[in-house]
Amino acid sequence: MRQTNRFLSLMVLVPLLLFSGLAQADKTYRLRLAETWGPNFPIFGDTTKNLAAMVEKMSNGRLKITIDSSNKHKAPFGVFDMVKSGQYDMGHSASYYWKGKVPATMYFTTMPFGMIAPEQYAWFYYGGGMELMDELYAQHNLMSFPGGNTANQMGGWFQKEINTVEDLQGLKMRIPGFAGEVLAKLGAKPTNIPPGELYTALDRGTIDALEWVGPSLDLRMGFHKIAPYYYTGWHEPGAELQFLVNRKKFDSLPADLQEILRVGMKASAYDMYTQSMHESGKNWSTMKQEYPNIKVKTFPEPVMQAIREANDALLKENAANDAFAAKVLASQQAYMDKVRQWTLMSDKAYLDSVAR
Amino acid sequence: MRQTNRFLSLMVLVPLLLFSGLAQADKTYRLRLAETWGPNFPIFGDTTKNLAAMVEKMSNGRLKITIDSSNKHKAPFGVFDMVKSGQYDMGHSASYYWKGKVPATMYFTTMPFGMIAPEQYAWFYYGGGMELMDELYAQHNLMSFPGGNTANQMGGWFQKEINTVEDLQGLKMRIPGFAGEVLAKLGAKPTNIPPGELYTALDRGTIDALEWVGPSLDLRMGFHKIAPYYYTGWHEPGAELQFLVNRKKFDSLPADLQEILRVGMKASAYDMYTQSMHESGKNWSTMKQEYPNIKVKTFPEPVMQAIREANDALLKENAANDAFAAKVLASQQAYMDKVRQWTLMSDKAYLDSVAR
Repeated sequence: MRQTNRFLSLMVLVPLLLFSGLAQADKTYRLRLAETWGPNFPIFGDTTKNLAAMVEKMSNGRLKITIDSSNKHKAPFGVFDMVKSGQYDMGHSASYYWKGKVPATMYFTTMPFGMIAPEQYAWFYYGGGMELMDELYAQHNLMSFPGGNTANQMGGWFQKEINTVEDLQGLKMRIPGFAGEVLAKLGAKPTNIPPGELYTALDRGTIDALEWVGPSLDLRMGFHKIAPYYYTGWHEPGAELQFLVNRKKFDSLPADLQEILRVGMKASAYDMYTQSMHESGKNWSTMKQEYPNIKVKTFPEPVMQAIREANDALLKENAANDAFAAKVLASQQAYMDKVRQWTLMSDKAYLDSVAR
Repeated sequence: MRQTNRFLSLMVLVPLLLFSGLAQADKTYRLRLAETWGPNFPIFGDTTKNLAAMVEKMSNGRLKITIDSSNKHKAPFGVFDMVKSGQYDMGHSASYYWKGKVPATMYFTTMPFGMIAPEQYAWFYYGGGMELMDELYAQHNLMSFPGGNTANQMGGWFQKEINTVEDLQGLKMRIPGFAGEVLAKLGAKPTNIPPGELYTALDRGTIDALEWVGPSLDLRMGFHKIAPYYYTGWHEPGAELQFLVNRKKFDSLPADLQEILRVGMKASAYDMYTQSMHESGKNWSTMKQEYPNIKVKTFPEPVMQAIREANDALLKENAANDAFAAKVLASQQAYMDKVRQWTLMSDKAYLDSVAR
């Protein structure tokens, strides 16, 4: 009888121990993500939903991401702080929004006259960009990952043609951030206006011009109905959004869920670039059908040259004041010198020869 | 005493049942992948290794992919059949290799004068391309997924300049597949030579020209040491490799592992495009430093026009003979009409204005 009891005890204990180990592996982890955008914002918001769906399915429900849009957390530009402090575990935003707080964050979204999306992905993943971004964000208990590309952004909607540098003088334009500083150096008056008021401001002449994104997101804003000139881009050739992750929270995840999150962010970021290409092609076709007189223009060479010189002067100042900025700029410039040669002899030469 | 025994029995049975359910979820699945390439083939081979590493880590070891290169399975162009029959569970190859077997597979890699990589990804994922590819491969117990992009391929290495259409007459060139058929229509003599013999053939004049990929993979072949002209591309503007999966095998995987495999393939395919950009930029810089006299050339407009007409005539024949080919071609053409307009006003206009 005692023999049997001992045997039974083992029969109980062994499976119980195994079960408790497996139960650990079956624990559900929940990550709360704050996005800078409002609810159901197209493309940007699809990216966080795409991520959440992928990681939930890949983890068989063990990793769940709940998304709070700006209507919920009320702090679209508080995402950096909220993720740093652990109030949220993750964020979806853009690195250049934090330049007032940590100046060198600016270089990890896009730069005027900088790399286009495929070049910049190459810099991030194979050219040292990720390592530099990691070094910077680690100082803030954060990890930052590419979060989706808008593709090349248009230079904006203008009521009047820009023929000379003088035409920029006094130009009231909604163009935020560093690009606004560049144009201000040439006498333009960058103004900041909430998105919901942009259409009316452009329509009533409160501003003379504005940039938003490109056809992918401009169509729903309706600017094409009220402005005749759509200028090609120079200031955001490959704007990459950002996934922010609280570093301690990331470290607390089991290794498999860390990898599911990392690969999920990577795939959803790339997907956003693809979706941006798609939506821009589709929406530009719609705009042109509805308003066939829209004129696509490029700033004349002397104007572009002046903008470029203003840009280079500002970057020089930034690099002189911030050793880390200088390091990132040097890395980007050296990388672009090589990869751009390839872009010119591949896609650019191809497009030239089939479009002529 | 009987009470105790009953209690003990429950204590044994309940955890055992739970444990057996969990053990099921803990089962290891092994997928055998055959790749067309030899062992450690750069970039292409990195893509399958990248996939295998990601899925193993994401699944905590429950999904393992073992990779057999062509030295092992001895059938680089037998991958379609081996995956279809279940001899292998997966393959890494290129869809256009199967055009002798299933003609319409040709349209899912790249097309002369067709889409560049970001345009084609948009077509695959948002423009109906995946649905068409799925429809075609389902007839063969197969699933096909994008498997990594080479980026725009160069037109090839030439010993002599091509100035007129007549210069193509009798030109002995290694250029396989559909692009070879196109040039043959203009009097060129496409020849097939094993990769290992290409350098000698070009050096000794057995052939006058050859195309391989681009700087990313051309550097190690050494063609830049023996041919003065490097022509820009027209025939493979965005060659996308392919992951093949045996459909029954895929269906037999648990849903979480299916998703891990799907997302892993997607991320590693996009990664290959990024890596191709990187390697081409880097290697072109090396080539130019070592051989500064290499001349990058583009076929003159009348030559390109003649090639294009030959291409269009061949495609028309194909579409007339194959209803599915006609459907795919119509889908691609309609999609490209829209997305190309966007490429021209975004990246192309940007590169024009910053490169001038």
